Amino acid sequence: MSTGPVARGRRPGDGRTRDAIVRAARTAFADQGYDATSLRGIAREAGVDPALVHHYFDGKAALFAETMRIEVDVRDVVGQILAGDPEGVGERAVRAFLRVWDSPEHRPRLLALLRAALTHDEAARALREFLVREIFGRVVVGLRPVGADPSEPLSADEGLRAGLAASQMIGLATMRYVVVLPAVAQAGVEDLVPHLGATLQRYLVPGSPQV
Amino acid sequence: MSTGPVARGRRPGDGRTRDAIVRAARTAFADQGYDATSLRGIAREAGVDPALVHHYFDGKAALFAETMRIEVDVRDVVGQILAGDPEGVGERAVRAFLRVWDSPEHRPRLLALLRAALTHDEAARALREFLVREIFGRVVVGLRPVGADPSEPLSADEGLRAGLAASQMIGLATMRYVVVLPAVAQAGVEDLVPHLGATLQRYLVPGSPQV
Repeated sequence: MSTGPVARGRRPGDGRTRDAIVRAARTAFADQGYDATSLRGIAREAGVDPALVHHYFDGKAALFAETMRIEVDVRDVVGQILAGDPEGVGERAVRAFLRVWDSPEHRPRLLALLRAALTHDEAARALREFLVREIFGRVVVGLRPVGADPSEPLSADEGLRAGLAASQMIGLATMRYVVVLPAVAQAGVEDLVPHLGATLQRYLVPGSPQV
Repeated sequence: MSTGPVARGRRPGDGRTRDAIVRAARTAFADQGYDATSLRGIAREAGVDPALVHHYFDGKAALFAETMRIEVDVRDVVGQILAGDPEGVGERAVRAFLRVWDSPEHRPRLLALLRAALTHDEAARALREFLVREIFGRVVVGLRPVGADPSEPLSADEGLRAGLAASQMIGLATMRYVVVLPAVAQAGVEDLVPHLGATLQRYLVPGSPQV
Protein backbone atom coordinates (compact mmCIF):
# COMPACT_ATOMS: atom_id res chain seq x y z
CA MET A 1 0.00 0.00 0.00
CA SER A 2 1.30 3.45 -0.81
CA THR A 3 2.67 5.42 2.10
CA GLY A 4 1.52 8.79 0.69
CA PRO A 5 -1.90 8.97 2.27
CA VAL A 6 -0.70 7.44 5.48
CA ALA A 7 1.97 10.10 5.68
CA ARG A 8 -0.83 12.67 5.35
CA GLY A 9 -2.52 11.14 8.35
CA ARG A 10 -5.43 9.35 6.73
CA ARG A 11 -5.71 5.64 7.35
CA PRO A 12 -8.41 3.11 6.58
CA GLY A 13 -10.83 3.12 9.48
CA ASP A 14 -10.11 6.78 10.09
CA GLY A 15 -13.52 8.55 9.89
CA ARG A 16 -11.80 11.55 8.39
CA THR A 17 -10.73 9.48 5.38
CA ARG A 18 -14.29 8.77 4.37
CA ASP A 19 -15.28 12.41 4.94
CA ALA A 20 -12.37 13.62 2.84
CA ILE A 21 -13.41 11.33 -0.01
CA VAL A 22 -17.01 12.57 0.11
CA ARG A 23 -15.92 16.22 0.23
CA ALA A 24 -13.63 15.73 -2.75
CA ALA A 25 -16.39 13.87 -4.62
CA ARG A 26 -18.91 16.62 -3.93
CA THR A 27 -16.63 19.23 -5.46
CA ALA A 28 -15.67 17.03 -8.39
CA PHE A 29 -19.24 16.08 -9.34
CA ALA A 30 -20.39 19.70 -9.08
CA ASP A 31 -17.44 21.17 -11.01
CA GLN A 32 -16.81 18.54 -13.66
CA GLY A 33 -20.15 16.78 -14.01
CA TYR A 34 -20.83 13.10 -13.49
CA ASP A 35 -19.14 11.74 -16.59
CA ALA A 36 -15.83 13.52 -16.32
CA THR A 37 -15.42 12.69 -12.64
CA SER A 38 -13.19 9.68 -11.96
CA LEU A 39 -12.75 7.80 -8.70
CA ARG A 40 -8.99 8.09 -9.23
CA GLY A 41 -9.22 11.88 -9.46
CA ILE A 42 -11.33 12.00 -6.31
CA ALA A 43 -8.76 9.89 -4.47
CA ARG A 44 -5.99 12.22 -5.60
CA GLU A 45 -7.94 15.28 -4.49
CA ALA A 46 -8.72 13.69 -1.13
CA GLY A 47 -5.08 12.67 -0.70
CA VAL A 48 -5.88 8.99 -0.25
CA ASP A 49 -5.02 5.79 -2.03
CA PRO A 50 -7.59 4.95 -4.78
CA ALA A 51 -8.11 1.56 -3.13
CA LEU A 52 -9.62 3.37 -0.14
CA VAL A 53 -12.32 4.91 -2.32
CA HIS A 54 -13.32 1.40 -3.36
CA HIS A 55 -13.06 0.27 0.25
CA TYR A 56 -15.68 2.79 1.37
CA PHE A 57 -17.93 3.06 -1.71
CA ASP A 58 -19.33 0.51 -4.11
CA GLY A 59 -18.63 2.48 -7.29
CA LYS A 60 -19.28 5.94 -8.66
CA ALA A 61 -23.11 5.89 -8.33
CA ALA A 62 -22.87 5.00 -4.64
CA LEU A 63 -20.43 7.82 -4.03
CA PHE A 64 -22.66 10.19 -5.98
CA ALA A 65 -25.66 9.20 -3.83
CA GLU A 66 -23.55 9.87 -0.74
CA THR A 67 -22.67 13.39 -1.92
CA MET A 68 -26.40 14.13 -2.20
CA ARG A 69 -27.06 12.74 1.25
CA ILE A 70 -24.34 14.93 2.69
CA GLU A 71 -25.71 17.97 0.85
CA VAL A 72 -29.11 17.61 2.44
CA ASP A 73 -29.48 16.58 6.06
CA VAL A 74 -32.07 13.91 5.37
CA ARG A 75 -32.96 13.19 8.99
CA ASP A 76 -33.55 16.87 9.56
CA VAL A 77 -35.71 17.39 6.46
CA VAL A 78 -37.87 14.31 7.07
CA GLY A 79 -38.18 15.27 10.73
CA GLN A 80 -39.39 18.77 9.85
CA ILE A 81 -42.00 17.41 7.44
CA LEU A 82 -43.39 14.89 9.93
CA ALA A 83 -43.31 17.17 12.99
CA GLY A 84 -46.80 18.57 13.57
CA ASP A 85 -50.31 17.76 12.44
CA PRO A 86 -50.87 15.62 9.34
CA GLU A 87 -52.88 18.44 7.69
CA GLY A 88 -49.67 20.47 7.43
CA VAL A 89 -47.49 17.79 5.80
CA GLY A 90 -47.74 19.18 2.25
CA GLU A 91 -46.98 22.73 3.27
CA ARG A 92 -44.05 21.69 5.48
CA ALA A 93 -42.64 19.52 2.67
CA VAL A 94 -42.70 22.46 0.24
CA ARG A 95 -41.14 24.82 2.79
CA ALA A 96 -38.38 22.33 3.66
CA PHE A 97 -37.63 21.77 -0.02
CA LEU A 98 -37.48 25.49 -0.84
CA ARG A 99 -35.37 26.20 2.25
CA VAL A 100 -32.69 23.81 1.01
CA TRP A 101 -32.87 24.75 -2.70
CA ASP A 102 -33.18 28.51 -2.24
CA SER A 103 -30.06 28.59 -0.06
CA PRO A 104 -27.03 29.96 -1.94
CA GLU A 105 -24.91 27.46 -0.03
CA HIS A 106 -26.67 24.36 -1.38
CA ARG A 107 -28.16 25.38 -4.70
CA PRO A 108 -25.11 25.26 -7.01
CA ARG A 109 -24.21 21.76 -5.92
CA LEU A 110 -27.79 20.49 -5.99
CA LEU A 111 -28.16 21.90 -9.49
CA ALA A 112 -25.05 20.09 -10.63
CA LEU A 113 -26.35 16.88 -9.08
CA LEU A 114 -29.76 17.30 -10.74
CA ARG A 115 -28.20 17.92 -14.15
CA ALA A 116 -25.98 14.86 -13.75
CA ALA A 117 -28.98 12.73 -12.82
CA LEU A 118 -30.91 13.95 -15.84
CA THR A 119 -28.20 12.98 -18.28
CA HIS A 120 -26.56 9.85 -16.81
CA ASP A 121 -28.32 6.61 -16.00
CA GLU A 122 -26.16 5.76 -12.99
CA ALA A 123 -26.70 9.18 -11.47
CA ALA A 124 -30.42 8.95 -12.25
CA ARG A 125 -30.55 5.71 -10.30
CA ALA A 126 -28.83 7.37 -7.37
CA LEU A 127 -31.24 10.34 -7.48
CA ARG A 128 -34.39 8.22 -7.55
CA GLU A 129 -33.15 6.06 -4.68
CA PHE A 130 -32.29 9.16 -2.72
CA LEU A 131 -35.61 10.93 -3.31
CA VAL A 132 -37.85 7.97 -2.69
CA ARG A 133 -35.93 5.82 -0.23
CA GLU A 134 -34.46 8.65 1.85
CA ILE A 135 -37.03 11.44 1.62
CA PHE A 136 -40.57 10.82 0.39
CA GLY A 137 -40.62 7.09 1.19
CA ARG A 138 -39.74 7.92 4.81
CA VAL A 139 -42.45 10.55 4.91
CA VAL A 140 -45.06 8.10 3.60
CA VAL A 141 -43.98 5.48 6.14
CA GLY A 142 -44.05 8.11 8.90
CA LEU A 143 -47.67 8.85 8.01
CA ARG A 144 -48.90 5.25 8.26
CA PRO A 145 -51.79 4.74 10.68
CA VAL A 146 -50.95 4.09 14.32
CA GLY A 147 -50.12 0.43 14.79
CA ALA A 148 -48.91 -0.13 11.20
CA ASP A 149 -45.48 -1.75 10.83
CA PRO A 150 -42.92 0.87 9.77
CA SER A 151 -40.55 -1.85 8.54
CA GLU A 152 -43.02 -3.07 5.87
CA PRO A 153 -41.81 -2.13 2.37
CA LEU A 154 -43.80 0.53 0.50
CA SER A 155 -47.02 -0.76 -1.06
CA ALA A 156 -47.67 -0.02 -4.74
CA ASP A 157 -49.96 2.86 -3.75
CA GLU A 158 -47.43 4.28 -1.28
CA GLY A 159 -44.67 4.01 -3.87
CA LEU A 160 -46.79 5.87 -6.42
CA ARG A 161 -47.63 8.59 -3.88
CA ALA A 162 -43.99 9.06 -2.90
CA GLY A 163 -42.99 9.09 -6.57
CA LEU A 164 -45.60 11.69 -7.51
CA ALA A 165 -44.49 13.95 -4.66
CA ALA A 166 -40.91 13.57 -5.91
CA SER A 167 -42.06 14.32 -9.47
CA GLN A 168 -43.68 17.63 -8.44
CA MET A 169 -40.60 18.70 -6.49
CA ILE A 170 -38.18 17.74 -9.27
CA GLY A 171 -40.40 19.57 -11.76
CA LEU A 172 -40.41 22.62 -9.51
CA ALA A 173 -36.61 22.53 -9.20
CA THR A 174 -36.34 22.19 -12.98
CA MET A 175 -38.62 25.16 -13.71
CA ARG A 176 -37.37 27.38 -10.89
CA TYR A 177 -33.63 26.74 -11.09
CA VAL A 178 -32.72 25.01 -14.38
CA VAL A 179 -35.15 26.25 -17.05
CA VAL A 180 -35.70 29.47 -15.02
CA LEU A 181 -39.27 30.18 -16.07
CA PRO A 182 -39.75 33.74 -14.72
CA ALA A 183 -43.25 33.22 -13.25
CA VAL A 184 -41.96 30.28 -11.21
CA ALA A 185 -38.38 31.44 -10.62
CA GLN A 186 -39.42 34.85 -9.29
CA ALA A 187 -42.39 33.64 -7.23
CA GLY A 188 -41.95 34.06 -3.50
CA VAL A 189 -42.19 31.15 -1.10
CA GLU A 190 -45.59 32.42 0.09
CA ASP A 191 -46.91 32.43 -3.51
CA LEU A 192 -45.76 28.87 -4.08
CA VAL A 193 -46.74 27.24 -0.80
CA PRO A 194 -50.56 27.34 -1.19
CA HIS A 195 -50.46 25.75 -4.66
CA LEU A 196 -47.69 23.21 -4.12
CA GLY A 197 -48.57 22.49 -0.49
CA ALA A 198 -52.06 21.38 -1.56
CA THR A 199 -50.55 19.11 -4.24
CA LEU A 200 -48.08 17.43 -1.89
CA GLN A 201 -50.73 17.10 0.79
CA ARG A 202 -52.98 15.21 -1.61
CA TYR A 203 -50.17 12.95 -2.83
CA LEU A 204 -48.63 12.17 0.55
CA VAL A 205 -51.61 11.90 2.88
CA PRO A 206 -54.39 9.59 1.66
CA GLY A 207 -57.84 10.97 2.36
CA SER A 208 -56.51 14.42 3.25
CA PRO A 209 -59.18 17.05 3.61
CA GLN A 210 -59.02 19.06 0.37
CA VAL A 211 -57.26 22.36 0.88
CA MET B 1 -24.58 30.52 -53.96
CA SER B 2 -23.88 26.83 -54.36
CA THR B 3 -25.80 25.09 -57.08
CA GLY B 4 -26.08 21.80 -55.15
CA PRO B 5 -29.28 22.51 -53.27
CA VAL B 6 -30.86 24.20 -56.24
CA ALA B 7 -30.08 21.17 -58.34
CA ARG B 8 -31.88 19.12 -55.65
CA GLY B 9 -34.93 21.28 -56.17
CA ARG B 10 -35.01 23.31 -52.96
CA ARG B 11 -35.08 27.06 -53.35
CA PRO B 12 -35.72 29.89 -50.90
CA GLY B 13 -39.46 30.38 -50.68
CA ASP B 14 -40.06 26.73 -51.37
CA GLY B 15 -42.10 25.43 -48.39
CA ARG B 16 -40.31 22.12 -48.67
CA THR B 17 -37.00 23.83 -47.93
CA ARG B 18 -38.14 24.93 -44.50
CA ASP B 19 -39.64 21.50 -43.81
CA ALA B 20 -36.43 19.78 -44.87
CA ILE B 21 -34.43 21.98 -42.50
CA VAL B 22 -36.75 21.23 -39.57
CA ARG B 23 -36.70 17.49 -40.31
CA ALA B 24 -32.90 17.47 -40.44
CA ALA B 25 -32.73 19.53 -37.23
CA ARG B 26 -35.09 17.19 -35.43
CA THR B 27 -32.89 14.20 -36.21
CA ALA B 28 -29.68 16.06 -35.41
CA PHE B 29 -30.84 17.37 -32.02
CA ALA B 30 -32.17 13.96 -31.01
CA ASP B 31 -29.11 11.99 -32.17
CA GLN B 32 -26.27 14.33 -31.30
CA GLY B 33 -27.67 16.48 -28.50
CA TYR B 34 -28.01 20.23 -28.50
CA ASP B 35 -24.36 21.16 -28.13
CA ALA B 36 -22.90 18.98 -30.86
CA THR B 37 -25.53 20.01 -33.39
CA SER B 38 -24.42 22.75 -35.78
CA LEU B 39 -26.54 24.79 -38.16
CA ARG B 40 -24.00 23.98 -40.85
CA GLY B 41 -24.44 20.24 -40.29
CA ILE B 42 -28.22 20.62 -40.42
CA ALA B 43 -27.95 22.50 -43.72
CA ARG B 44 -25.77 19.76 -45.16
CA GLU B 45 -28.18 17.05 -44.02
CA ALA B 46 -31.13 18.97 -45.46
CA GLY B 47 -29.29 19.52 -48.73
CA VAL B 48 -29.59 23.30 -48.56
CA ASP B 49 -27.22 26.23 -48.43
CA PRO B 50 -26.39 27.21 -44.79
CA ALA B 51 -27.57 30.75 -45.56
CA LEU B 52 -31.08 29.37 -45.97
CA VAL B 53 -31.10 28.03 -42.42
CA HIS B 54 -30.36 31.56 -41.23
CA HIS B 55 -32.98 32.91 -43.62
CA TYR B 56 -35.72 30.81 -42.01
CA PHE B 57 -34.56 30.62 -38.37
CA ASP B 58 -33.11 33.14 -35.96
CA GLY B 59 -30.39 30.88 -34.57
CA LYS B 60 -30.12 27.45 -33.02
CA ALA B 61 -32.57 28.01 -30.13
CA ALA B 62 -35.31 29.12 -32.54
CA LEU B 63 -34.76 26.06 -34.69
CA PHE B 64 -34.77 23.87 -31.59
CA ALA B 65 -38.12 25.37 -30.50
CA GLU B 66 -39.50 24.66 -33.96
CA THR B 67 -38.47 20.99 -33.76
CA MET B 68 -40.47 20.72 -30.52
CA ARG B 69 -43.47 22.39 -32.11
CA ILE B 70 -43.35 19.97 -35.01
CA GLU B 71 -43.02 16.99 -32.64
CA VAL B 72 -46.23 17.89 -30.84
CA ASP B 73 -49.24 19.18 -32.72
CA VAL B 74 -49.84 22.13 -30.40
CA ARG B 75 -53.18 23.19 -31.83
CA ASP B 76 -54.45 19.65 -31.46
CA VAL B 77 -53.24 19.21 -27.86
CA VAL B 78 -54.59 22.58 -26.66
CA GLY B 79 -57.85 21.90 -28.49
CA GLN B 80 -58.25 18.52 -26.78
CA ILE B 81 -57.64 20.05 -23.35
CA LEU B 82 -60.13 22.88 -23.83
CA ALA B 83 -62.87 20.82 -25.55
CA GLY B 84 -65.50 19.92 -22.96
CA ASP B 85 -66.51 21.08 -19.52
CA PRO B 86 -64.05 23.07 -17.39
CA GLU B 87 -64.22 20.43 -14.63
CA GLY B 88 -62.42 18.00 -16.95
CA VAL B 89 -59.50 20.26 -17.94
CA GLY B 90 -56.96 18.69 -15.57
CA GLU B 91 -57.80 15.14 -16.55
CA ARG B 92 -57.78 15.96 -20.27
CA ALA B 93 -54.42 17.73 -19.92
CA VAL B 94 -52.86 14.68 -18.26
CA ARG B 95 -54.32 12.31 -20.84
CA ALA B 96 -53.14 14.48 -23.75
CA PHE B 97 -49.65 14.69 -22.26
CA LEU B 98 -49.38 10.94 -21.65
CA ARG B 99 -50.77 10.16 -25.11
CA VAL B 100 -47.93 12.11 -26.72
CA TRP B 101 -45.15 10.96 -24.35
CA ASP B 102 -46.17 7.32 -24.12
CA SER B 103 -46.17 6.95 -27.91
CA PRO B 104 -43.10 5.09 -29.17
CA GLU B 105 -43.12 7.43 -32.16
CA HIS B 106 -42.62 10.62 -30.14
CA ARG B 107 -40.90 9.58 -26.94
CA PRO B 108 -37.27 9.16 -28.07
CA ARG B 109 -37.19 12.59 -29.67
CA LEU B 110 -39.02 14.30 -26.81
CA LEU B 111 -36.59 12.71 -24.37
CA ALA B 112 -33.63 14.04 -26.34
CA LEU B 113 -35.21 17.49 -26.41
CA LEU B 114 -35.90 17.41 -22.67
CA ARG B 115 -32.33 16.34 -21.89
CA ALA B 116 -30.99 19.13 -24.10
CA ALA B 117 -33.18 21.69 -22.36
CA LEU B 118 -32.01 20.53 -18.96
CA THR B 119 -28.36 20.98 -19.79
CA HIS B 120 -28.19 23.96 -22.16
CA ASP B 121 -29.43 27.46 -21.43
CA GLU B 122 -30.54 28.22 -24.98
CA ALA B 123 -32.51 25.00 -25.22
CA ALA B 124 -33.98 25.66 -21.76
CA ARG B 125 -35.23 29.01 -22.99
CA ALA B 126 -36.82 27.35 -26.00
CA LEU B 127 -38.49 24.72 -23.80
CA ARG B 128 -39.96 27.20 -21.35
CA GLU B 129 -41.32 29.36 -24.16
CA PHE B 130 -42.79 26.31 -25.80
CA LEU B 131 -44.47 24.96 -22.66
CA VAL B 132 -45.86 28.22 -21.41
CA ARG B 133 -46.48 30.24 -24.55
CA GLU B 134 -47.68 27.40 -26.75
CA ILE B 135 -49.32 24.96 -24.37
CA PHE B 136 -50.29 25.94 -20.82
CA GLY B 137 -50.50 29.68 -21.50
CA ARG B 138 -53.02 28.99 -24.27
CA VAL B 139 -54.99 26.72 -21.96
CA VAL B 140 -55.10 29.40 -19.25
CA VAL B 141 -56.21 32.02 -21.77
CA GLY B 142 -58.82 29.62 -23.16
CA LEU B 143 -60.27 29.29 -19.65
CA ARG B 144 -60.71 33.02 -19.04
CA PRO B 145 -64.26 34.05 -18.14
CA VAL B 146 -66.64 34.83 -20.99
CA GLY B 147 -66.09 38.39 -22.19
CA ALA B 148 -62.40 38.54 -21.11
CA ASP B 149 -59.95 39.69 -23.76
CA PRO B 150 -57.94 36.70 -25.04
CA SER B 151 -55.25 39.01 -26.42
CA GLU B 152 -54.34 40.37 -22.95
CA PRO B 153 -50.94 39.03 -21.83
CA LEU B 154 -50.91 36.54 -18.95
CA SER B 155 -51.32 38.11 -15.52
CA ALA B 156 -48.80 37.22 -12.79
CA ASP B 157 -51.28 34.73 -11.33
CA GLU B 158 -52.03 33.18 -14.72
CA GLY B 159 -48.31 32.91 -15.45
CA LEU B 160 -47.69 31.17 -12.16
CA ARG B 161 -50.58 28.76 -12.78
CA ALA B 162 -49.34 27.90 -16.26
CA GLY B 163 -45.80 27.50 -14.91
CA LEU B 164 -46.86 25.19 -12.09
CA ALA B 165 -48.83 23.01 -14.52
CA ALA B 166 -45.72 22.83 -16.70
CA SER B 167 -43.59 22.01 -13.64
CA GLN B 168 -45.77 19.01 -12.72
CA MET B 169 -45.72 17.70 -16.27
CA ILE B 170 -41.95 18.14 -16.68
CA GLY B 171 -41.44 16.47 -13.31
CA LEU B 172 -43.66 13.59 -14.41
CA ALA B 173 -41.72 13.22 -17.68
CA THR B 174 -38.46 13.27 -15.70
CA MET B 175 -39.56 10.59 -13.24
CA ARG B 176 -41.42 8.40 -15.75
CA TYR B 177 -39.02 8.54 -18.71
CA VAL B 178 -35.62 9.92 -17.63
CA VAL B 179 -35.01 8.83 -14.04
CA VAL B 180 -37.37 5.84 -14.56
CA LEU B 181 -38.66 5.53 -11.01
CA PRO B 182 -40.47 2.16 -11.17
CA ALA B 183 -43.60 3.22 -9.23
CA VAL B 184 -44.15 6.10 -11.66
CA ALA B 185 -42.72 4.53 -14.82
CA GLN B 186 -44.83 1.38 -14.53
CA ALA B 187 -48.05 3.08 -13.43
CA GLY B 188 -50.89 2.84 -15.93
CA VAL B 189 -52.59 5.92 -17.33
CA GLU B 190 -55.65 5.17 -15.17
CA ASP B 191 -53.50 5.10 -12.01
CA LEU B 192 -51.92 8.44 -12.84
CA VAL B 193 -54.94 10.38 -14.06
CA PRO B 194 -56.83 10.75 -10.74
CA HIS B 195 -53.76 12.09 -8.90
CA LEU B 196 -52.28 14.28 -11.63
CA GLY B 197 -55.63 15.35 -13.08
CA ALA B 198 -56.63 16.82 -9.71
CA THR B 199 -53.32 18.70 -9.52
CA LEU B 200 -53.58 20.20 -12.99
CA GLN B 201 -57.22 21.03 -12.44
CA ARG B 202 -56.34 23.04 -9.33
CA TYR B 203 -53.44 24.82 -11.05
CA LEU B 204 -55.20 25.63 -14.31
CA VAL B 205 -58.76 26.42 -13.27
CA PRO B 206 -59.06 28.96 -10.45
CA GLY B 207 -61.79 28.09 -7.97
CA SER B 208 -62.20 24.55 -9.34
CA PRO B 209 -64.33 22.32 -7.20
CA GLN B 210 -61.88 20.08 -5.35
CA VAL B 211 -61.76 16.61 -6.84
